[in-house]
Amino acid sequence: MKKRNCFIGQSGGPTVAINASLAGIIHECIKSQKFDHVYGMVNGIMGLLESRYMDLGELFNDSQALEQLKHSPAMYLGSCRYKLPNYQDDPQTYEILFHTFEQLHITDFYYIGGNDSMDTVAKLSAYAKSIHSPICFIGIPKTIDNDLMGTDHTPGFGSAAKYVATSMLEIAYDSSIYKLNAVTIVEIMGRNAGWLTAASALARTQCNEAPDLIYLPEVPFSTQKFLDDIRKVFRHKKNIIIAVSEGIKNENGEYLDADSKYTKRDAFGHVLHSGTGKVLESLVYQEFKCKVRSIELNVLQRCAMHIASKVDLEESFQIGQAAVQTSMEGHSGVMMTFQRVQNQPYQVEYTYKDVLKIANLEQRIPVEWINDEHNDITQELYDYLIPLIQGEVAITYENGIPCYSNISHLRYK
Amino acid sequence: MKKRNCFIGQSGGPTVAINASLAGIIHECIKSQKFDHVYGMVNGIMGLLESRYMDLGELFNDSQALEQLKHSPAMYLGSCRYKLPNYQDDPQTYEILFHTFEQLHITDFYYIGGNDSMDTVAKLSAYAKSIHSPICFIGIPKTIDNDLMGTDHTPGFGSAAKYVATSMLEIAYDSSIYKLNAVTIVEIMGRNAGWLTAASALARTQCNEAPDLIYLPEVPFSTQKFLDDIRKVFRHKKNIIIAVSEGIKNENGEYLDADSKYTKRDAFGHVLHSGTGKVLESLVYQEFKCKVRSIELNVLQRCAMHIASKVDLEESFQIGQAAVQTSMEGHSGVMMTFQRVQNQPYQVEYTYKDVLKIANLEQRIPVEWINDEHNDITQELYDYLIPLIQGEVAITYENGIPCYSNISHLRYK
Repeated sequence: MKKRNCFIGQSGGPTVAINASLAGIIHECIKSQKFDHVYGMVNGIMGLLESRYMDLGELFNDSQALEQLKHSPAMYLGSCRYKLPNYQDDPQTYEILFHTFEQLHITDFYYIGGNDSMDTVAKLSAYAKSIHSPICFIGIPKTIDNDLMGTDHTPGFGSAAKYVATSMLEIAYDSSIYKLNAVTIVEIMGRNAGWLTAASALARTQCNEAPDLIYLPEVPFSTQKFLDDIRKVFRHKKNIIIAVSEGIKNENGEYLDADSKYTKRDAFGHVLHSGTGKVLESLVYQEFKCKVRSIELNVLQRCAMHIASKVDLEESFQIGQAAVQTSMEGHSGVMMTFQRVQNQPYQVEYTYKDVLKIANLEQRIPVEWINDEHNDITQELYDYLIPLIQGEVAITYENGIPCYSNISHLRYK
Repeated sequence: MKKRNCFIGQSGGPTVAINASLAGIIHECIKSQKFDHVYGMVNGIMGLLESRYMDLGELFNDSQALEQLKHSPAMYLGSCRYKLPNYQDDPQTYEILFHTFEQLHITDFYYIGGNDSMDTVAKLSAYAKSIHSPICFIGIPKTIDNDLMGTDHTPGFGSAAKYVATSMLEIAYDSSIYKLNAVTIVEIMGRNAGWLTAASALARTQCNEAPDLIYLPEVPFSTQKFLDDIRKVFRHKKNIIIAVSEGIKNENGEYLDADSKYTKRDAFGHVLHSGTGKVLESLVYQEFKCKVRSIELNVLQRCAMHIASKVDLEESFQIGQAAVQTSMEGHSGVMMTFQRVQNQPYQVEYTYKDVLKIANLEQRIPVEWINDEHNDITQELYDYLIPLIQGEVAITYENGIPCYSNISHLRYK
């Protein structure tokens, strides 16, 4: 019988759920009994070009190791920020890759990643078709930003949202202790899409009103309106908590922290921001001369496995399983997607879409889901978000800290 | 029979364990059946001067409410940053307070706080003695900084240490995914004492070496040595993680972020710092031109109840109980302390010490517990720290987020 081997890769920024998708793929491959080898490329396509890969079937053939992988943050296989060139510009790269595929008898290729990774899946599947290669290329989404088109939401987002909501609640408690005028600004990840910042609203309970104001990158940010909003809230309470996306822009479309000391860009040319909270902190202090503090939630939003969403981890595992079933049915050049069937009780179906309809596009919050004042979200958005953060996961602790999969293979000299 | 009522107050910055001590005091007061009323002053001594207090015995007479209080972060009673004046300078303040005590038949006064709060306990108990008042004044320590004298460690520190160690582990996983030279700088709280920064070493496991370098405020920080240290580590690994205290100072005793845009001070005149990580990030980038990122753990270190240490919460509850027993024995002007009996198995005793030997002093890391290179901790310090972060607490979640005690009484207009 003909050999059937597959490659799995991870790419882009980490989330706490991306290893759950990896675990789902491995589990389904082993369960199907159709694969001789389940290979993992180390550091994505870039590592594959350097012939760096490992045999995952051997490493994860017991359920305990797989369970630990499912509950480990970041990326077991490592990542890369490598933009696959167009075939016309660099045919050799494609030839190297497909030569490797041939040598290793690869039939299926799973790439877990965000927007840029789907671009890779699109290019590889198009090239495969052009040379009549039967290899199936499947994209599995992941991003804490929830900004991929064609899917109800993305794996990894629910856990990041749960981290943001929980942190917002705890920061609100922390900020409540003094009887004095105070403003706390919480800066949340999300360059162009405000989904994660919106998730801060999930912190609201019978006991907690925070955040009092929410600023999203989908609508222009006005400094004057911002200060007026704060003035209004001060009329009925002393202690104000504000959630703000790192990527808010003024009416001219300029980022608020454009005056940062040194502007950094990632490999794809995206500008990396980090100073929006500090800029607003300074503005508020100058205007109100009150206690003011900005808090940047930073990378823990995407790596705090200890507070992951159970719904998110289960879905991320299952979308990995569904990816294997989809490629076994012969589909290629598609990204796996979630389709929300209903909200109460919450239910999703696993489907797939042409990756060309997804790659290089961004799904942002519809403006109808932002209030007229542009400083809060609507009930519709709340209802959309709340099912995604449900449930807690049981992490194994050893010696007081979580016990995650060993990633010493990513330790480079 | 003569009435016996008590006051409990919380003061200073929040921790996740300070409500556990409050719960311990309330529980022991109710259990003793000797108190008619257990009053809580709202916003500490400052609130008491404005006659703001509440009856805790009524609110927490069922074990479920008390259990929730034990597992709620920040300060149920609110806090103040109020320095009690010396009697000589302002006798009226003392007269107002003791008049309130008399009117409410107060026999016992429990004040949970840090260094500055112990100063309040010292002053009130001294004044009580001078006027032959029989009221017992007991201090219960709390601080994430672990910098109080006379006690093996402080309530609240273990949970903050567990948060720091867990976050460091998760950041290390997050930072491991790319194959490129990179430096991640994690800035940790601790103005003059490096205990919490040292706790980042507890993230080290068989699978994780991070942090690679640790810089503490107990020894002078040299920029040149820092860059040389990084250069050395780069010789054998690409990806470097550094833990640094917010309060490190150069050889001239100046804070590294002294050039911050605007320097803030708290009510006690302490300078508030927040830019050390950013200063180092810029230095590293200029020297190595590599990927570099600084992460400020910020207030979540002291409010992340969802990752609290079970040992810490249990001890914090029990030191509250011990405080009630101590005042019932007639002691006053003392702070409750932990005395470590042994390390394996870990065991502490609850004792007390003259508060005058504690107030306004700082317990810093002994230099023998810092390595000769001044960039790591010794095994002795690791062994001291590790018992304090053991065990996890079961938080109740509702609708995806933790369910904490209602603190809407702290919502001021």
